[in-house]
Amino acid sequence: MANRLDSLEKILLMGPGPSMVHSSVYAALAKDTIGHMDSSFIALMDDIKAQLRVLCQTKNSVTMPMSGTGSAGMETCFVNLVEPGDAVLVLQNGVFGVRMADVAGRLGADVDVLEFEWGTPVIPDDVVKALGKKKYALVAVVHAETSTGVCNPVEAIGKLVKEHGALYLVDCVTSLGGMEVALDHWGADAFYSGTQKCLSCPPGLAPISFSEAAIAKLKSRKKKVPNWYLDLTLIINYWEGNSRAYHHTAPINMNYALYQALHCIFEEGADRVFKRHQAVHDQLVSGLDALGFKMYVKEGFRLPMLNAVVPPPGVDEAHLRKQLRQEYMIELGSGLGPLAGKIIRIGLMGETARKENVNRLLAALRACL
Amino acid sequence: MANRLDSLEKILLMGPGPSMVHSSVYAALAKDTIGHMDSSFIALMDDIKAQLRVLCQTKNSVTMPMSGTGSAGMETCFVNLVEPGDAVLVLQNGVFGVRMADVAGRLGADVDVLEFEWGTPVIPDDVVKALGKKKYALVAVVHAETSTGVCNPVEAIGKLVKEHGALYLVDCVTSLGGMEVALDHWGADAFYSGTQKCLSCPPGLAPISFSEAAIAKLKSRKKKVPNWYLDLTLIINYWEGNSRAYHHTAPINMNYALYQALHCIFEEGADRVFKRHQAVHDQLVSGLDALGFKMYVKEGFRLPMLNAVVPPPGVDEAHLRKQLRQEYMIELGSGLGPLAGKIIRIGLMGETARKENVNRLLAALRACL
Repeated sequence: MANRLDSLEKILLMGPGPSMVHSSVYAALAKDTIGHMDSSFIALMDDIKAQLRVLCQTKNSVTMPMSGTGSAGMETCFVNLVEPGDAVLVLQNGVFGVRMADVAGRLGADVDVLEFEWGTPVIPDDVVKALGKKKYALVAVVHAETSTGVCNPVEAIGKLVKEHGALYLVDCVTSLGGMEVALDHWGADAFYSGTQKCLSCPPGLAPISFSEAAIAKLKSRKKKVPNWYLDLTLIINYWEGNSRAYHHTAPINMNYALYQALHCIFEEGADRVFKRHQAVHDQLVSGLDALGFKMYVKEGFRLPMLNAVVPPPGVDEAHLRKQLRQEYMIELGSGLGPLAGKIIRIGLMGETARKENVNRLLAALRACL
Repeated sequence: MANRLDSLEKILLMGPGPSMVHSSVYAALAKDTIGHMDSSFIALMDDIKAQLRVLCQTKNSVTMPMSGTGSAGMETCFVNLVEPGDAVLVLQNGVFGVRMADVAGRLGADVDVLEFEWGTPVIPDDVVKALGKKKYALVAVVHAETSTGVCNPVEAIGKLVKEHGALYLVDCVTSLGGMEVALDHWGADAFYSGTQKCLSCPPGLAPISFSEAAIAKLKSRKKKVPNWYLDLTLIINYWEGNSRAYHHTAPINMNYALYQALHCIFEEGADRVFKRHQAVHDQLVSGLDALGFKMYVKEGFRLPMLNAVVPPPGVDEAHLRKQLRQEYMIELGSGLGPLAGKIIRIGLMGETARKENVNRLLAALRACL
């Protein structure tokens, strides 16, 4: 029988995730599976929680990976914290803000959306005005908008949200592991991320964190969480405390990989990893500029790890990406929604964020143009 | 920095899952990650769907793995097919039937439970009576009750459910890959399973299948599915058709592993795999009998891959399991719920279902008693 896995090519992943994976993470993934109730797995879970707390700069006890991809993290935050009729404000300037509003709306929340132009950041002054008009139970924002490459001012927004007594939810899918994430300092009450971006681990898990205030809201719900699989009131009993109760069978090997990916970050030093992301971003921007590409986001608001770029006039972005994939084995990302066909998204996430990868991409682009 | 992964032991997994994993599946898991929109990944997705259809004996177009563990499969079936107020009948004779009722209830279903004694199968005559009393939108049953080791008569039940015009949901988490699953022949409209049982793959994905009737129900919903992450109306656009639309980033490497695990089953031959499960079950039952263990389930209703056994009088089951784990590196499972402390669950799933493993366990038990 032919085996399709034999013909898989080795691609340089420079899109919006998944990113490149260190060989030690692949090796971790392939270690012998153990039981989900085994004491050695419980010890590994505790280590993962501790590592995540350090990387997220939080003391939150409830900090752990959910058994799904980043979007399952988004679903987890909303489904546990929102009850029908709760007023939710979504600060929206990209695809993932749109998704948040969709997720919250499906759960019966009274969702208001404060829109900002795609490619520009959320403006705190506008947030103040919105918070003054209505009492919100929860305010949600995306730290690193993967669809546009914009970094939102989550610290400034957090200050405002706290002053108005709402819970503060921050999406850090693309930022975690590539730049500073400081949950407690920001006043974030709920957080989620994914493994396949700057953590440089294959997709499959969604780190989350809930503050004491978020847990209090969860515990005061009138009805059960309308999602058994992601119900934190149950999952906490598996991930926390002295006697762990079976909930679902955790993705054991994916947790090995996450452990190792976090281990790699701390071995290099988180600050050094963040500086490496910034350095390769600067290298990419200056190289692209020389080739006639324009950055879609203004300087000062750009993410280091996700670069939205407009090709030179006359260059067909879809054709260019196809050529890079077929002739150079490099994957770049397309634009999403209204940005489809207009921008290319270049990811510099985790192991992808190495100068040799930027040089290889720039050389390939030069050859293609 | 110490690395906890270095101290993981190699355990013979003979509990209720995860099961042993073939080395080729570990190798698949560790292959280079590619993009979730890459044409080579799309081709792999199509192969996985085709393989699953063969193993499930179904023509259902919507047959694919969900990005979560088996319980996410359960959640997927209910959240897509149940609307608030829908009458749902759960045939319950173990933990997973209890879980089904919980999941459906959270979604606002009008849930009736028809209970059968744990350790005994669902009785079709009782199902007929229940179906005559009320019109149900959906009837749900577990094929292989992992908590008790009972095999339910899903074919006979399916015939009754179809006669009464309800949708028929069958949980095959523990049966798929270890015994025949014949969805179309049973009249099953919705099905879910997990990778970590008889598919012999690490946990992390949940194969599902929906019939045309189930898809019709999904498409006629009054409101959006109240779960964005598991919304099949969206996910189908990623897994089906000519132009695939991004939904969430699929767990790429877990899909490699599932592909390879299915490949292994078809290389050996599915019928041979099922016979192997039955043969090692017979070997285990006769070996345990000689040691004074009693089977919890009567002959004729036993699952080959999940054996609920009552230890000889005077033997403490928790102590015995601990000794096997610590001194023989063998994992067995405890009883769940009312069966905790009363039974031991011995899994013979997938790669675990080998005669040398049964011999190793029997020798270890002999030494411990």
